Amino acid sequence: MTNPPTRGGVLGALDGDPAVDAAIGDDALIRAMLDVEAALARAAAAAGLVSRAAAEEVTAAAAGLDPDPSDLGRRATAAGNPVVPLAALLQAAVSRPAQAAVHLGATSQDILDTALMLASRRALELVVDRVRGAADVVAELAATHRNTIMLARTLGQPAAPTTFGLRAAGWLTGLDVVATARLEQVRDESLAVQLGGAAGTRAGFAGSGAQVAAGLAAELELIDPGRPWHTERSRVHELASALQAVITAGGKVAVDIVSMSQAEVGEATEGTPGGSSAMAHKRNPVQSILILAAARRAPSIVAALLGSGVHEQERATGSWHAEWQPLRELIGLAGGVAVRTADVVADLRVDTAAMRRNLDSASPGILSEGITALLRPHLGRERAQDAVRQALDAAPEGGPDLVLALRADPHVAEAITAEELTSALDPSTHTGDAGDLVDTILRTRRNDKHRSRC
Amino acid sequence: MTNPPTRGGVLGALDGDPAVDAAIGDDALIRAMLDVEAALARAAAAAGLVSRAAAEEVTAAAAGLDPDPSDLGRRATAAGNPVVPLAALLQAAVSRPAQAAVHLGATSQDILDTALMLASRRALELVVDRVRGAADVVAELAATHRNTIMLARTLGQPAAPTTFGLRAAGWLTGLDVVATARLEQVRDESLAVQLGGAAGTRAGFAGSGAQVAAGLAAELELIDPGRPWHTERSRVHELASALQAVITAGGKVAVDIVSMSQAEVGEATEGTPGGSSAMAHKRNPVQSILILAAARRAPSIVAALLGSGVHEQERATGSWHAEWQPLRELIGLAGGVAVRTADVVADLRVDTAAMRRNLDSASPGILSEGITALLRPHLGRERAQDAVRQALDAAPEGGPDLVLALRADPHVAEAITAEELTSALDPSTHTGDAGDLVDTILRTRRNDKHRSRC
Amino acid sequence: MTNPPTRGGVLGALDGDPAVDAAIGDDALIRAMLDVEAALARAAAAAGLVSRAAAEEVTAAAAGLDPDPSDLGRRATAAGNPVVPLAALLQAAVSRPAQAAVHLGATSQDILDTALMLASRRALELVVDRVRGAADVVAELAATHRNTIMLARTLGQPAAPTTFGLRAAGWLTGLDVVATARLEQVRDESLAVQLGGAAGTRAGFAGSGAQVAAGLAAELELIDPGRPWHTERSRVHELASALQAVITAGGKVAVDIVSMSQAEVGEATEGTPGGSSAMAHKRNPVQSILILAAARRAPSIVAALLGSGVHEQERATGSWHAEWQPLRELIGLAGGVAVRTADVVADLRVDTAAMRRNLDSASPGILSEGITALLRPHLGRERAQDAVRQALDAAPEGGPDLVLALRADPHVAEAITAEELTSALDPSTHTGDAGDLVDTILRTRRNDKHRSRC
Amino acid sequence: MTNPPTRGGVLGALDGDPAVDAAIGDDALIRAMLDVEAALARAAAAAGLVSRAAAEEVTAAAAGLDPDPSDLGRRATAAGNPVVPLAALLQAAVSRPAQAAVHLGATSQDILDTALMLASRRALELVVDRVRGAADVVAELAATHRNTIMLARTLGQPAAPTTFGLRAAGWLTGLDVVATARLEQVRDESLAVQLGGAAGTRAGFAGSGAQVAAGLAAELELIDPGRPWHTERSRVHELASALQAVITAGGKVAVDIVSMSQAEVGEATEGTPGGSSAMAHKRNPVQSILILAAARRAPSIVAALLGSGVHEQERATGSWHAEWQPLRELIGLAGGVAVRTADVVADLRVDTAAMRRNLDSASPGILSEGITALLRPHLGRERAQDAVRQALDAAPEGGPDLVLALRADPHVAEAITAEELTSALDPSTHTGDAGDLVDTILRTRRNDKHRSRC
Repeated sequence: MTNPPTRGGVLGALDGDPAVDAAIGDDALIRAMLDVEAALARAAAAAGLVSRAAAEEVTAAAAGLDPDPSDLGRRATAAGNPVVPLAALLQAAVSRPAQAAVHLGATSQDILDTALMLASRRALELVVDRVRGAADVVAELAATHRNTIMLARTLGQPAAPTTFGLRAAGWLTGLDVVATARLEQVRDESLAVQLGGAAGTRAGFAGSGAQVAAGLAAELELIDPGRPWHTERSRVHELASALQAVITAGGKVAVDIVSMSQAEVGEATEGTPGGSSAMAHKRNPVQSILILAAARRAPSIVAALLGSGVHEQERATGSWHAEWQPLRELIGLAGGVAVRTADVVADLRVDTAAMRRNLDSASPGILSEGITALLRPHLGRERAQDAVRQALDAAPEGGPDLVLALRADPHVAEAITAEELTSALDPSTHTGDAGDLVDTILRTRRNDKHRSRC
Repeated sequence: MTNPPTRGGVLGALDGDPAVDAAIGDDALIRAMLDVEAALARAAAAAGLVSRAAAEEVTAAAAGLDPDPSDLGRRATAAGNPVVPLAALLQAAVSRPAQAAVHLGATSQDILDTALMLASRRALELVVDRVRGAADVVAELAATHRNTIMLARTLGQPAAPTTFGLRAAGWLTGLDVVATARLEQVRDESLAVQLGGAAGTRAGFAGSGAQVAAGLAAELELIDPGRPWHTERSRVHELASALQAVITAGGKVAVDIVSMSQAEVGEATEGTPGGSSAMAHKRNPVQSILILAAARRAPSIVAALLGSGVHEQERATGSWHAEWQPLRELIGLAGGVAVRTADVVADLRVDTAAMRRNLDSASPGILSEGITALLRPHLGRERAQDAVRQALDAAPEGGPDLVLALRADPHVAEAITAEELTSALDPSTHTGDAGDLVDTILRTRRNDKHRSRC
Repeated sequence: MTNPPTRGGVLGALDGDPAVDAAIGDDALIRAMLDVEAALARAAAAAGLVSRAAAEEVTAAAAGLDPDPSDLGRRATAAGNPVVPLAALLQAAVSRPAQAAVHLGATSQDILDTALMLASRRALELVVDRVRGAADVVAELAATHRNTIMLARTLGQPAAPTTFGLRAAGWLTGLDVVATARLEQVRDESLAVQLGGAAGTRAGFAGSGAQVAAGLAAELELIDPGRPWHTERSRVHELASALQAVITAGGKVAVDIVSMSQAEVGEATEGTPGGSSAMAHKRNPVQSILILAAARRAPSIVAALLGSGVHEQERATGSWHAEWQPLRELIGLAGGVAVRTADVVADLRVDTAAMRRNLDSASPGILSEGITALLRPHLGRERAQDAVRQALDAAPEGGPDLVLALRADPHVAEAITAEELTSALDPSTHTGDAGDLVDTILRTRRNDKHRSRC
Repeated sequence: MTNPPTRGGVLGALDGDPAVDAAIGDDALIRAMLDVEAALARAAAAAGLVSRAAAEEVTAAAAGLDPDPSDLGRRATAAGNPVVPLAALLQAAVSRPAQAAVHLGATSQDILDTALMLASRRALELVVDRVRGAADVVAELAATHRNTIMLARTLGQPAAPTTFGLRAAGWLTGLDVVATARLEQVRDESLAVQLGGAAGTRAGFAGSGAQVAAGLAAELELIDPGRPWHTERSRVHELASALQAVITAGGKVAVDIVSMSQAEVGEATEGTPGGSSAMAHKRNPVQSILILAAARRAPSIVAALLGSGVHEQERATGSWHAEWQPLRELIGLAGGVAVRTADVVADLRVDTAAMRRNLDSASPGILSEGITALLRPHLGRERAQDAVRQALDAAPEGGPDLVLALRADPHVAEAITAEELTSALDPSTHTGDAGDLVDTILRTRRNDKHRSRC
């Protein structure tokens, strides 16, 4: 029988990514637990605690086992974790002499914690790929639209001119400098083997605990943390924090697309919008909405993990068990957000004419900050703001009338020419350092990419 | 192919109950959606909008469909919900004339919201059964141990005498007056059909919307709320709140069992404790620990639902989608907690001798409140507390020495006889209204049960 | 010295309501604790446990105390709660004979739990007033705009015609049927006195515990729950749930106003929008934004309360203490949301012309559901949807061209007259039961108000 | 009038630290906002945008302002943030020519975000001090008790021997390697100035935006991030994550102290336990309980911050406002946890005799892992476990009887001498690498401290 997926299904398909889901699914987790048991046997052999033959037999037996997840789950309920029945299966699969090499010196938490780290690393590679892919496309968007002027909106209201390039560069910062960097840092610094034995003292390794832990880490390409972390769960929290960073970065892209794709705004739309069961005309920004739905769920999952962060004595009465499923759920959501973000930016339809149209509709009001700045040296702050407000009331359509209205104040007329004011009414003179900021952000990225290649 | 379970599996088996998981699983949800579509067709026929023959054909076709959840999930990603592909399947399964009776006047949210309510109600019945079962056993414990004296502990420290009966009666209140009552109230008042159509106006029902909604409610034995609730999600929140009440009530039982089963305390233990992969002697209170793990996760899930509670315009951009999986997860956890609580109380080993032993060890200190109360009318509050503290320092073992120490104060000696003091040093005279409170709580329950039978 | 406010201040002023903040502030809480101590003395006197004279002396002394909150807070750190130093102050303020009537039979949790319930009830009255006030105005809006046609938006996209009256009626449901009803239910069923004594057995009342509890409840106009609830915290959870309902209901109003007041939409604006420190033209929907900020914070506070819901043994090691501040914070946020919602709806500027303009811009696309429904009986569902989609592509501007395009299909031409189609292209024929639903919702409210007056 | 504290008060005193509370209190925040305005003027002068004289005047005026927080808060409600009225006050306090140097090019978010970062850094220094202080004491505990044998407990049950030194070294890891390191990393990498102007383009700086930002950062000793982060909030999230790490680390210490100080366990107690309002004998681990209460609240606050992490467009409609108070609350809780943890470890009473007594009571059961390991090479895993289980059943008291019982199996008798078995029954031979792990952890710390001094 094909093992059932842990995630996916009729609703789960809408929040995950099949490949990432598989990487943290039940089959993958069982495989990871067996990989850990096998690696432990080999590390014990390297430390001289068991024979190499026994370790090889355990490795072969582990590779040959393929227990049904649901069946293993049922048998896990007695001890409260799946390692107890899995270790029993593994032991039954080896010869009597090799039995001593099975689960040597370990406790269930060693195996399950390490397996979750291992499966997480495998899933993380996929998530990193997807986030990098999204970032690549967004970098192109930022470069292409470096000078595409659009309306910045703050508190939901027209603010001042900006560029779509700068908005995209902001997306890039989230995807790249924050999310990718955090994922890579976690992969390189946090994902560690757990090895403590029953009480966290490594008493079962006859003094070779440090050596076995180092060997286990090398076998699994995980970090050797130099000590058990049974009750010190910051590694789980760092992982959660990095996954949340992915989801937040994707959420920022999605929320902007949802607002840009409103019918009255129309500045950008998903390339493949979704239909409706009732309305033939509907073009819903479905992928963005699914990203936002995930972004609404993620912080609570992080809170569940943090809320189970204090582990009493040498193994907690529930806090450890409470980590397992939320961690997998969060990885699944991050995978879904990453792939959807990559899809949505790759397929984004940008309407630069609409951007310009909305900007013009909001002018000249949105130029008030810039014009005020021009007047301030001459009138002082307060009078400058008043002068601009009055002129806008008098000439709400802007243009030459507004120039006249502004110059009606003799201090203004004296200090600033009509040409200068006319130029100040061109939104494209009000984008400040937008272009430079885009360049800086893109340059940082290129450097980062270069560095990570070395 | 057997449809894969949404929950369960290698880790999920440790937090759920197979029957409840099945009731909210993918197959059950698809079945519920098809049930809603069929009931809608029949309600439309009753309102004269379509023919009864068409409605019957839709009903038969719906009964005959059994789509693969993962396949349906994949096809759901385009529109962002599974109703769009499911309605298409249903339409393809009926004759041309009957097609008009499929999904008539409805929007995806109508079908999915109503289906989730329907599946929730089916799951709730199972949860109620399990919670009632647990409450029955706990009521027996409270009655049996009405006079079993034990040490009350507050802030982790010995406080004063109580009875195990009163502690169990406290468990009963949570399971019975709170959790069961909330579940039943939600079932009877909150689980409602959703019917609004594309914009929440019921425009697709040619003026018969109210009649169709009433018919749909009658068909599905759900409430007719008299209006759509597309963006008013209190029904979901009430359901979540009731499920949380189950988990909190089970958590209270579990946390007390974990503390009572500590080796140094030993007042009660699980009948079937769990073993360890490393330690042959281990007798872990595993079921209680699994309950506590669920209790650590649940509040975050409630927060996810509440945090998606504000739905903008006529259908939200993500908040609706964010409800689906957390709601099912919470039902699953409540199911697991309910069944484990029922199991654990049914199999609880109570050691009344250990209760007495721990009480005696903490005496006479824990009688200080009672003795102080005896002295207070004669010495005033402050002097009474001082006198008791000094006497306890002088005669920490209690007994006749403590009586002497207390009567060393002439005001005490004058006011209270040695016999009275000796009697006050018997913990069993310090359990106050414990017995009466147990009786009251049990009586309330019996009344409740009787009432619900009527 | 004036006691410092617990809430309010430079940022707190933006999330609360001064009156509600005061009702749950430090001075109010201290007053409530003293009220409870005094009421307890009187109830004990009524039960014959102390003299009436002593109870009167305690009452007078309690009324005369006005300790500095910060000072009391500092002295509370030793015992971990403010009741210990407050009871000491009270005791020091009465004559020796009356001392026995101070804090008789009670434990700190009795006083603080009851005081929090008492302060909550006082704050709740204010919140109910504000929510009712908001609901009254919203009911007027719903009535006034019963037939004001506007564009329903789902998933951020134009959906179909609705009325502003129906949207406002939706706001009303949240404010009225949900929030007000929950607040009143909690006030009448959940806010109860706590009386258990040191171990929850009421051992300090010499058998009169039930009588004292009943007397205390009568004195304070709180519920007598018939048992202590030291470790059964559903009353706190119900209160939190009702407060969350207020915040969710206000959040729904606010999120719709923010979207309606977008420059490109312009369907409604706050009457007194906020300015900016940088932009003279800004008209930010500030009160709505402050409501949304509160709505983002509230679910986490509920989660904190629920996450501290399992109280072990007879008094928890931290969970109890963790309730105090989040509960006050949530009441404060609910107060702020209630008053801001009342303000914002009272001062709302509705632009019915803009509503019509946006509706027309989105036509005829948004009529697709309605036209499809018209065609479906004649063409079947699938062909009807195709026909509409093709006609919309051919005549995207609607009007007579669209009628022609639709009737190009001979089945349509045969079945439906041009007049019927022309009429179907008038959005006002597509609002379904919107008017009836408004009437129903308003009628329910009128009945409710009448009932609560009786 | 003395400005009222934002935190502290009758309940707040129990969750904060006065110094940290003051550093993030209202007065401190207003001071920080004024510091930012002044530094901005100076940075603008250095960039040649305004005169140095004007900048100096602004600086002097800012230093001279001391607005009442509640008054400022009331005036902040119109614009929805306190910067608008504060900038107006500052402007009114300078001469007309200097007005242009006030708030130049900035928007409210620039000032408030930067001020929150500045106040956070000041508070963080205090928190770091306290956490380092706690870590120093815990390092001493670990060294002192390197060989103090005690019972490790897992899932609430006796597991195997460990040392109190290793448990304390675990505390140290949390306080030192995790919390302190995270706090320092955040201080050095995350706390940055915000400078974007109205739309995030720095349009108000006439091309000198980068220079002004760099100058502002230098003036305030914050990081220059090279770009605005109006809508990219990872800096806030990193800060929250580090604060949570402090709270988790303190929580671990506290939860262990609460369990060790149980009457039946008695292995360690707070030096200054708390009393009760009802019970003269009470010795509650109050400081630990207050730490645990904070630990229960913190994850929800982190969730509130993360849940407001997606900021739409160029400034969010509520998510930004929702960050302010939770951030201060979290800093306050971290401060309280840090100082209480430092106090509690400095004053901890360790009872090594009780540790030994509890260990002996749990023997020989808890040696089962070790004895099984001894037998496993000779009997295989399964038979070894069976042999140990049977021998323990036969000789539950351990000692010579258990040696005999084990050697009853001829395979055992043949392979292992009575001397070897007797030695294996001494718990002190079962602490594995505990001593080495303590040494490693202490050595890491010494290196870290040395490095940070360089």
